[in-house]
Amino acid sequence: MARVGMRKEIVEAAFEQFHARGYNAAGVKDITDAAGVPKGSFYNHFPSKEALAVVALDRYGETVRMRDLTDRSVEPLARLRAHFEFLRDETVRHGFARGCMLGNFGAEITDHSETLRTAVREGFARWSALITGVLDEARSAGGLRPGLDPEATAVFVLSAWEGTLVRARADRSGEAFDAFFSLVFGTLLA
Amino acid sequence: MARVGMRKEIVEAAFEQFHARGYNAAGVKDITDAAGVPKGSFYNHFPSKEALAVVALDRYGETVRMRDLTDRSVEPLARLRAHFEFLRDETVRHGFARGCMLGNFGAEITDHSETLRTAVREGFARWSALITGVLDEARSAGGLRPGLDPEATAVFVLSAWEGTLVRARADRSGEAFDAFFSLVFGTLLA
Repeated sequence: MARVGMRKEIVEAAFEQFHARGYNAAGVKDITDAAGVPKGSFYNHFPSKEALAVVALDRYGETVRMRDLTDRSVEPLARLRAHFEFLRDETVRHGFARGCMLGNFGAEITDHSETLRTAVREGFARWSALITGVLDEARSAGGLRPGLDPEATAVFVLSAWEGTLVRARADRSGEAFDAFFSLVFGTLLA
Repeated sequence: MARVGMRKEIVEAAFEQFHARGYNAAGVKDITDAAGVPKGSFYNHFPSKEALAVVALDRYGETVRMRDLTDRSVEPLARLRAHFEFLRDETVRHGFARGCMLGNFGAEITDHSETLRTAVREGFARWSALITGVLDEARSAGGLRPGLDPEATAVFVLSAWEGTLVRARADRSGEAFDAFFSLVFGTLLA
């Protein structure tokens, strides 16, 4: 029988395992072992590893503090900068490892799973829409470089962020982060 | 005994398999099957899958036409744009799949293999250095936005490109490419 606590433990372990190891490297047994539950109990809770990965991706989404992007008590571009600084600090805290689960799944598995491609696409779309909102606010307040289209700019900045994480992990250095903050906030937007 | 032709067939199959499926999803047997050679022959040619992946990454590097970046018969920023347009067209030709092997390995495996992390880091460093050279030329010719640091800008543009590929694959659409070309060549550099 499915136990509510067991499902939650599996999701939490899957989030950790997928984030640390990637989709293919994290097997169902790795996940159930990490959760401390019998492997046989897995299919009481999830029809497939793929289905679990969609839930784990949602769980990851909760950790990136997207809601901070709608906090109007902070000036729009300062808010956007603080958002990426928080994510940078998380990556540094993990020794320049892990990066973004959306980007990792995007690079590893979207070509091979329509279910996960949809989940990644929707995750990026939600995130981009929030960034578009911030840039719209900045534009209304006269704080955005004239001529920038908020929607295309949001897509671009989020893509730049995803690539920056990959580079920083390969380099195990903050050089790519420094370039991102300097070019996005020092040149592109302001 | 190691056969020269067989080694080359393994490298070519590995390049295809790693690019299409990723590092973990492409097993040694998948690669030897695709090469049409016995699995047992693999270790006559390579000490490990990891060692083969380094060679396959070099093979991938030959396909991205980095040398075009040093072709001084073309105006610097037009040359840089044509370079990324070629890579965009390759991704579109593959049905918005595959992306960049450096970025894919970067997202999937650099946290777990020091050998592959070094290979990816060096690949990115070479590529960035070539882009820095193009931006230096553009600056000397007065064709670069004043105040941009060519080295940091090169790191940023390459990161933005890598993230753009991931987004375009997740979306199966050219929207992220359009944003990249508009923001990089319409706003950031010129």
